[in-house]
Amino acid sequence: MHVNDLETPAVLIDIDIMMRNIMRMQAHCDALGVKFRPHIKTHKIPDIARLQIEAGAQGIACQKVSEAQLFAESGFNDIQIPYNIVGAQKTNKLADLALFNKITVSVDHVRVIDGLAAAAKTREMSLRVLVELETDIQRTGAKVAEVVTLAQRIEEEENLHFAGLLVYPSSPTMRPAVQEAIQMLSAAGIGVDVVSGGGTLAAQHAAQIPELTELRVGTYVFNDWTTVAKGAAALDDCAMHILATVVSRPTPERAILDCGSKTLSSDRYGGFFGYIVEYPLARIYQLSEEHAFVDLSACEDHPVIGDRVHVIPVHTCVAMNLANFVYGVRGEALEVEWPVAARGLVW
Amino acid sequence: MHVNDLETPAVLIDIDIMMRNIMRMQAHCDALGVKFRPHIKTHKIPDIARLQIEAGAQGIACQKVSEAQLFAESGFNDIQIPYNIVGAQKTNKLADLALFNKITVSVDHVRVIDGLAAAAKTREMSLRVLVELETDIQRTGAKVAEVVTLAQRIEEEENLHFAGLLVYPSSPTMRPAVQEAIQMLSAAGIGVDVVSGGGTLAAQHAAQIPELTELRVGTYVFNDWTTVAKGAAALDDCAMHILATVVSRPTPERAILDCGSKTLSSDRYGGFFGYIVEYPLARIYQLSEEHAFVDLSACEDHPVIGDRVHVIPVHTCVAMNLANFVYGVRGEALEVEWPVAARGLVW
Repeated sequence: MHVNDLETPAVLIDIDIMMRNIMRMQAHCDALGVKFRPHIKTHKIPDIARLQIEAGAQGIACQKVSEAQLFAESGFNDIQIPYNIVGAQKTNKLADLALFNKITVSVDHVRVIDGLAAAAKTREMSLRVLVELETDIQRTGAKVAEVVTLAQRIEEEENLHFAGLLVYPSSPTMRPAVQEAIQMLSAAGIGVDVVSGGGTLAAQHAAQIPELTELRVGTYVFNDWTTVAKGAAALDDCAMHILATVVSRPTPERAILDCGSKTLSSDRYGGFFGYIVEYPLARIYQLSEEHAFVDLSACEDHPVIGDRVHVIPVHTCVAMNLANFVYGVRGEALEVEWPVAARGLVW
Repeated sequence: MHVNDLETPAVLIDIDIMMRNIMRMQAHCDALGVKFRPHIKTHKIPDIARLQIEAGAQGIACQKVSEAQLFAESGFNDIQIPYNIVGAQKTNKLADLALFNKITVSVDHVRVIDGLAAAAKTREMSLRVLVELETDIQRTGAKVAEVVTLAQRIEEEENLHFAGLLVYPSSPTMRPAVQEAIQMLSAAGIGVDVVSGGGTLAAQHAAQIPELTELRVGTYVFNDWTTVAKGAAALDDCAMHILATVVSRPTPERAILDCGSKTLSSDRYGGFFGYIVEYPLARIYQLSEEHAFVDLSACEDHPVIGDRVHVIPVHTCVAMNLANFVYGVRGEALEVEWPVAARGLVW
């Protein structure tokens, strides 16, 4: 089947580019001597995670218990969830999953530890727990001064095991905090087996934090306009393209594509909602749900109604999450149709 | 089942509020003497469209051929697609659908007309076609000066029928253009059966364009933070709430909820990504894929990890489109689980 036989908007994955990205990141981690743990939140497709494992990854990261369950059922065993799992329903499902799989989870507060401990205790099993450090993005994470208290609390619980530290993103600026946390834990007699770093951008600079033992990276598998704009990838490294049709040309300088915020998402970077391969100087400046507004004023050539274009999304993870199916292609040949199996899972 | 038994994030639809919204908009249209055509892009659920029809709506609007097909298969007959349908695959499916259903579609260019005509001709059937007028939002739509040419072209095609004009949004500022288009068509001997207006905000002011014969409105069924902020609804008219859990409290002034951009979408209004019912002065100032960053600095009470809150999304249509299932509730009782049947349909 030819790509032109697909109706638009369609999410295309260039298999050759994806495989090159997979091999390159694995080689990067191998050269650094750190273990690699791809984050499946980007693709949510077991078949693609299998390619990452076959390339040498040690396990995977999932962002939700429901994702971990789906991937465990698909044959993946070593799964990390870098997220505070809160509430008895979720901690119970997490503990059920950990009865038969190697599951590691992160925490940043004693309340989260208490919930995990209760779920693990009723099952007489042990959960592996990382302590998350706060980073420059000021999202979740404990302060360095709190790490020893949290690690001790984990170790006091009979059914929890302190597995190490987790950092997102593991930018080079985080090294002093990581070093300080390790020293404080060491002084308290607590060993740190794992220091898990993450982020496609931070992975480039992972050599600057030699304390890292593993990297969790998601976006690298496809890349997107943001990773290109931030210098972590070239345009030729972008494996995901949204095949879209020009559906309206209301003025000489405006085109409308059939990929709106329900296809690309509303994520933007530098005022852009996506990059059009065929029209590098065009600018997707606005989205409706099913319309992309394109400014052609800087372009020499102008498309006509019915033309098809390839759009590199600003954020591949959220674009993927909007599709029910994506299409693996080699050149213009359609090779495989993948259901986005873990999209829309709630808990 | 109690709402508290649901895992989070969960999309809740308050059935009583939704029904009040449905009845109110229908009564508004009845009072104006215009037909009402709810746009299903907001909910994508046949059961909810059925409630809208039972309340008096004449038909529905869908934004895609695939949505129209799903709703036709669910028993809806009078379906309008206010979109340029471009490409032989889509026009053929549209024409197939129109063989057994009353389908109306809009155009803004002769190329779009040509595509529709070709598909209709091979089936020896007739497609109803509206001409879309450009509006203040400068998206799709033909200029008034082009309307007669387009209408004549439609009428020249044996298998197309010119059905009237379409405007989105039908703000009062559009009246002069609508009047001019009708006058020009009348002078050319072409009657205008339908003037279809649209938009939840514009619907409030529909009395100011007495030329309108029908209204297409979507968001009104649930409302959201944007319709509230723009004065088209009160907070109590918001039928959709995202039930979310506080998963982290890294600082006294910051909370993290488990509803990120893969739940709320990245649509924002006035710097907000959602309104927290229990903490009206809190501010969702940033999203990651599975995290909402909340600034509590203006709040007197502060939630603890594990607390649940109700978030009114900024844009209900895109939040709905991210869920696989939503939950119809009355008070705190779960009454029905609806699959979001038409979400993720591509073409």
